[in-house]
Amino acid sequence: MEQSALSTASFLLKGEWKMAEAYTIVFQPSGRRGEVPAGKTVLAAAQELGVGIEASCGGKGVCGKCRIIVEEGRFEKLGLVSGASHVSERGETEEKFFTEDELSRGYRLACLTQITGDLVVTVPEESRSVKQVILEKGKKRTFTINPAVKQYTIKLPAPTLEDARDDRRRLLDVLEEKEGLSGLTVDYPVLRTLPRTLRENDWLVTVSVWQGKEVIRVESGEAPHSLGIAIDIGTTTLAAFLCDLVTGELLSKASRMNPEIGYGEDVLARISYAMANEDGGEKLQRAMQDAVSELAAQMTGEIGRTPSEVDEMVLVYNTAMHHFTLGLDSRYVGRSPFAPAASDALDIKARDLGILINPSANIHSLPIEAGFVGADNVAVLLAEEPYNSESVKLIIDIGTNGEIDLGNKERLLSTSCATGPALEGAQIAFGMRAAPGAIERIEINPETYEPRYKVIGKDEWFPDISFTGAQGICGSGIIDVVAELYRAGIISKAGRINTKLDTPRVRKDDKGKAEYVLAWAPETAVHKDIVITQGDIRAVQLAKGAIYVGAKYLMEKYGIDHVDEVILAGAFGSYINKKSAMALGMFPDCALEKVQAVGNAAGDGARIALLNVEKRKEAAKVAREVEFIETAVEPDFQTRFMEALAIPHAKDEFPHLKEGDA
Amino acid sequence: MEQSALSTASFLLKGEWKMAEAYTIVFQPSGRRGEVPAGKTVLAAAQELGVGIEASCGGKGVCGKCRIIVEEGRFEKLGLVSGASHVSERGETEEKFFTEDELSRGYRLACLTQITGDLVVTVPEESRSVKQVILEKGKKRTFTINPAVKQYTIKLPAPTLEDARDDRRRLLDVLEEKEGLSGLTVDYPVLRTLPRTLRENDWLVTVSVWQGKEVIRVESGEAPHSLGIAIDIGTTTLAAFLCDLVTGELLSKASRMNPEIGYGEDVLARISYAMANEDGGEKLQRAMQDAVSELAAQMTGEIGRTPSEVDEMVLVYNTAMHHFTLGLDSRYVGRSPFAPAASDALDIKARDLGILINPSANIHSLPIEAGFVGADNVAVLLAEEPYNSESVKLIIDIGTNGEIDLGNKERLLSTSCATGPALEGAQIAFGMRAAPGAIERIEINPETYEPRYKVIGKDEWFPDISFTGAQGICGSGIIDVVAELYRAGIISKAGRINTKLDTPRVRKDDKGKAEYVLAWAPETAVHKDIVITQGDIRAVQLAKGAIYVGAKYLMEKYGIDHVDEVILAGAFGSYINKKSAMALGMFPDCALEKVQAVGNAAGDGARIALLNVEKRKEAAKVAREVEFIETAVEPDFQTRFMEALAIPHAKDEFPHLKEGDA
Repeated sequence: MEQSALSTASFLLKGEWKMAEAYTIVFQPSGRRGEVPAGKTVLAAAQELGVGIEASCGGKGVCGKCRIIVEEGRFEKLGLVSGASHVSERGETEEKFFTEDELSRGYRLACLTQITGDLVVTVPEESRSVKQVILEKGKKRTFTINPAVKQYTIKLPAPTLEDARDDRRRLLDVLEEKEGLSGLTVDYPVLRTLPRTLRENDWLVTVSVWQGKEVIRVESGEAPHSLGIAIDIGTTTLAAFLCDLVTGELLSKASRMNPEIGYGEDVLARISYAMANEDGGEKLQRAMQDAVSELAAQMTGEIGRTPSEVDEMVLVYNTAMHHFTLGLDSRYVGRSPFAPAASDALDIKARDLGILINPSANIHSLPIEAGFVGADNVAVLLAEEPYNSESVKLIIDIGTNGEIDLGNKERLLSTSCATGPALEGAQIAFGMRAAPGAIERIEINPETYEPRYKVIGKDEWFPDISFTGAQGICGSGIIDVVAELYRAGIISKAGRINTKLDTPRVRKDDKGKAEYVLAWAPETAVHKDIVITQGDIRAVQLAKGAIYVGAKYLMEKYGIDHVDEVILAGAFGSYINKKSAMALGMFPDCALEKVQAVGNAAGDGARIALLNVEKRKEAAKVAREVEFIETAVEPDFQTRFMEALAIPHAKDEFPHLKEGDA
Repeated sequence: MEQSALSTASFLLKGEWKMAEAYTIVFQPSGRRGEVPAGKTVLAAAQELGVGIEASCGGKGVCGKCRIIVEEGRFEKLGLVSGASHVSERGETEEKFFTEDELSRGYRLACLTQITGDLVVTVPEESRSVKQVILEKGKKRTFTINPAVKQYTIKLPAPTLEDARDDRRRLLDVLEEKEGLSGLTVDYPVLRTLPRTLRENDWLVTVSVWQGKEVIRVESGEAPHSLGIAIDIGTTTLAAFLCDLVTGELLSKASRMNPEIGYGEDVLARISYAMANEDGGEKLQRAMQDAVSELAAQMTGEIGRTPSEVDEMVLVYNTAMHHFTLGLDSRYVGRSPFAPAASDALDIKARDLGILINPSANIHSLPIEAGFVGADNVAVLLAEEPYNSESVKLIIDIGTNGEIDLGNKERLLSTSCATGPALEGAQIAFGMRAAPGAIERIEINPETYEPRYKVIGKDEWFPDISFTGAQGICGSGIIDVVAELYRAGIISKAGRINTKLDTPRVRKDDKGKAEYVLAWAPETAVHKDIVITQGDIRAVQLAKGAIYVGAKYLMEKYGIDHVDEVILAGAFGSYINKKSAMALGMFPDCALEKVQAVGNAAGDGARIALLNVEKRKEAAKVAREVEFIETAVEPDFQTRFMEALAIPHAKDEFPHLKEGDA
C-alpha cells in the first residue's frame, strides 16, 4: 500500500489531482457507470456501482485477481481524454502481476488504481465475479437453411512422378469431378498451408466453399460443421449469435457494450470524434474489431470450438455504425445531403477488417437504406416481412437510434428517431444491461406505493424474498417502473414525482431532486438504495415521445389513422412489457392482442441472412424499395414532440387501454 | 572507444570469442563477401572487401554515418545462427544515434561493431559511399501495350437531397454510363477513403480498373499514369523494372541481392531452413516482402512518384523462390514427387503479400512449369517466343539455377541445371554484382601474360589508365577471364593454373594455392591485389559443364545434333561475351553469328506480361505445353558432367570456334 500512497503523492505534487472533484467512470462490458470522487480506487468504485470484480484478498494488492484494463476514453462533454493520465501511476507491486504485453494494453489491478479523471474501464471475463448470462429469447421464426458457405468432404489422389499436378489444381479437379464445382478460385491464405493440410490425413479433406465460387478453408479429415456468426451492432449494445452453418442451430449467444461508447455516447459525437482526430476513424474501427473478435472467441470457446472455424459473418447496424465498423470515411454521412460512402451489401474478407475468425471468411454487411436507417432496419424487415403481409404493421425497433417501419405488401415507409440509450438501461441512475441482478419487472401498489419487483436470475419476486441481490434496472424494468409510477399516482401526466405523498419511498436527494426508492439498500447487492430519479423519468418520456411522434408521422404519410398490428423489437435483452409500453403512450392505440414484443428482430434478421443466402437478395430489394421519411424536418415536429412527452399522450387516443391493463 | 573495449572484454569472459578465428561476412545488397578475423570491426571488413560505407569521422564512432543493419543470418555449413550473438554488444555511445525502432531492427554503427561470428550485414542506401548504378540493357523487343489496369478520368454529379445515392454507387453508375464498364466491384481499401477523394477535386477523379472488373484505386482530379513493376526474383539477384502502364515506357530499373541469401545460399538450403524452423517460411517471406517493397520505394522515388501509385506487379521466379515469396509451404516441392503447392498463374492482393504498393494492386505471379523450372523460364519463353519460331533455338538462362529450353513451334523441351552463383559473381574470391567498380571485360596477352581489362563506370581500359578503381569481378568478367587464361595458355584444358610460367601474375597464396593476379593493389579501390583463384576457375568449370550437359541431353531427346540458334540470357547485369562463353564450351557448337546474348530475358518476359495482359494467356499455354526433362537422373549424367568440365570440352566439337575468335 506504500507504493500507492507514493503514487498518490506524486499526483498531488504534479497538481493533477484535485481534491473533492468527481469523475465519471464507465465499466465495460456491463455498461454500468457512475460519478466517483477523485482518488477512489477503481475496485471501490466498482463495488459501489454493483460491478462484480474478483478480489479474494479484499483489495490489498496481494491476490492479483482484480485485473482490469484502463481504456482510452472520451466523454462528449469533456472533449478527448486519454485514459493513461486519468489514473494513478502503476508501481512495481502491480507490474509483477502482468506480462509485458498486458502492461502495454493497459492492464491494472483495480485495487491499486486510483481514479484521477474520467475513465472507461474494461473488466475482462476472468476478473468478473458475476458471469454474464444472456437471456434474450428469439421469436420463433422459420429459417430455410441455405448458407453462403457449404462444406464438402473429399478424397484426393496422392501425387506420383507420373501425376505431379500441383496441390491447388489437384484439389480443384476433384471438386469439379465429384461435386460439379467448376471455375473455383482458392483464397490466398488457404494456399499457404494447403500442402500440409492435404497430406495430414492421407489426402482426405473437408473444403469450405463460398457461394460456389471460392475455396475459403480446407481442413484435414472430416471436419466438424462450419460456424457462422451474426451480430447486431447497436449504438450502445452488441448482440452476437453463433450458428451451425449446416443445421442452422443457434449454438451460443453473447452480448456486450459497444466499445466505441468511450469515443462518444451517440453516433453524432462519434462522427465528430472521427473528424476531429487524425486517427479517430481508425480508433473507432480498431475498438470494434477487438470487440467483435472477442465475441467470436468467447462464443466459440463456450462450445469448445475455435474462431478459425467461423466461415461467414453477417453484420447489421445503423448507417453510422456501418461506417465506423468498416472504417469508411464517416464525415459526410452526418451532414446534408447525408450521402453514405456505400449503401449496397458488401462482402469483405475478415482479414481485411481485422476480425479474427477464418481469415478467408467473408463479412457480409447487409445493405443500408437512407439517412441513419441502416442495415439493422433491413434486418428487422427481413425478420418481420411486412412486405409479404396484407395487414398494415407498425414495427418499432427500440435502440439508441430507434427505427420505425409502417406498411404492408403495398407500400412500406420507414423513419428513424433519436431515442437515446435510456430504454437500453444506459444514462439512467441505476440503469444496467439485462444481466443477472437487473430488475426487469415492477408492479407498484397504488395504495401503499410499495413495489413488487423481479430480478433477472431469481425466480421469486420481492417482497416474497427479502434479499434480491438487485444491482440496477434494465430497459424493460425502466419502462415498467415509469408506467407503474403513473398508474399508482406517484407521477403526474407530465411525469413529475408527487413529493407530497405519505411514503418513505418518495424523497428528495441532497440537491433537492425528487426520487422514488425502488429497492432499499439491504435488499440489494450494491448496498445502496436503488432509486428512480426525476431525470430517469424524463429520459424515458423523451424516448417514448420520439417514437410516438415518428409513428404518427408515418401513419399520416401512409394515410391511415390506425394500424392493424404493432411489433415491438429491440436488443435490450429482456422482453419489454407491452402493456407498460402502451400505458406510457409509446405507440398509437392498437388492440393489445395485436401488439407483440419480439425481442431482437434485427439480430434475428441478421441470422436469417447468415443462414439463407437467398434472403440477401430480398434484403437488397427491400432496402431499395422502402421509402425513407425524414420526420425531424417537419415544421410542427417540435410542438408535437413536446405534446408527446405526457403519459399517456392523451387518454382518449387509447380506447384499447383500460385501467386494468396497465 | 572504452565502451567497445568493455564489450570486447565481456565477450572474452563469456568465452564466445576465440582469438584468431575467421568468420564469413556477407554484405547486402552488393553481395560482397569474405573471411575476416574475429574481433575486426564491420567497417574495417567492409573497407577490405571493397564495400563502400560512409565514415566521415574515420571510424571513431563520432559522425554516426556508418549505419548498418545486422541481419539474422544462416550459413549452410554452420547451421542456424542468429546475427545478434555474432557481433559485439551495443553500448550507449552507439544507441544515441538510433531511434527505438531502428535499434529493434538491428541498426549498428559499422565502426563500433566487432565481428564475433558469421554475419549478414545490410548497408542501407543512406550509408553507401558508392551509389548503385544499373547497367542492364534490354534486348529491343516489340511490346504491345494492353495492361491489366486501365485508367479513366471521369466527372461525377455531386449529391443532392434528391439524389443522395451513396458514393460507391455514384461512381459505378458513371463508369457504366460513360465507359461502358458494368458489374464492377470496388476493392475494400478504396472504399475507406472514397468519400474524401471524390470531394477533394469537385467530383473529378481518375479511376484505376483492373481487368475491367474491379476498381483498385481512385485519385482526385486528373492523376498521372498508373505505374507497374515487373521483378525477376532470382536465387541470388533481384532485378526490378518500373514501367508506365499507359505508354509502356521503362521509367526506372533497380537490382539488389536476394535477401534470403542469409537463410541459405541455394534453394535447397532455404527449403531446409523453412522446414527446420517453425517461423522459417515466414522469415523468408518477410525478407522478400521488405526487399520488394524497398525496390518499389527506390524506383518510384527516383522518378518523383510514390509506391502507392503502383497498380500492378508481375513476379517471375523459380519454383522455390515462388513458394518462398508467396509464403507457400515449401517442404514438399523439394522432395519426390516434387508437387508444388500451386502452379497456375495467381493474382494476389499486394496487401495480402505485405508488399507496400497500392494495397489493392494485384501481384500477378506467372505460372510455373515443373520441378525447379519456374515462372522465370516461362518469362524467358514469353520474351524469346521459340514456340513461334521455325528454326530450333537453344535458350540458356544463366543463373544460380540455370534453365535450358530447346525447340521451335513443333515441340519445346526444358530442363534445369544447378549452375551455382559463380556466373553471377558470387562465391568467387573477388566476385561482385555488375556495378561500378566491377571488372567486366578482360583480354590477356598470350606472350606477356599481362591483362587488359575494363571496369564498369570507366570508359578506358587498363593499362590505358593506371588507376581503374576496380573492386572485383562481375559475372561476364569471370567468364572472360577464364576463357582468356586458357587462350593465353595460363590454364590447362583441365583448368589447372600453370605455376611454372615466368610472370609475377601467376603465384601461390599462403596456403600454396595457385592464383592469377588480374589487378595489382595500386590500380584498385580495395587496395588489394584482385586475383582469380584456382577455386574460382573450378566454379566456372562446374557451371559451364552443367549447362553444356543439360543442353546436350535436350538435343538428344529432341533428336538433333546441332541447333540453329543459341540465346544466352541471364540477369547478371553486364552482357556476357558470347565468344568467351563459346570458348569455354558452355554450349554445343553453333555459328557465332547465330549466338546472341540478350541480357535478362526473364525480366523482359515479366515486363511483357505486365504490359500486355493477353501474353498471360500465352504464358498459361506454354507452361502447360512445354515438356520438362529431368536430366540429373540419367544414368550416365555423372560421367558426362565430369567430361564437360574440360575447356573447351572437345576442340573438334567446335568447328565454328577458330583460334582468332576466342
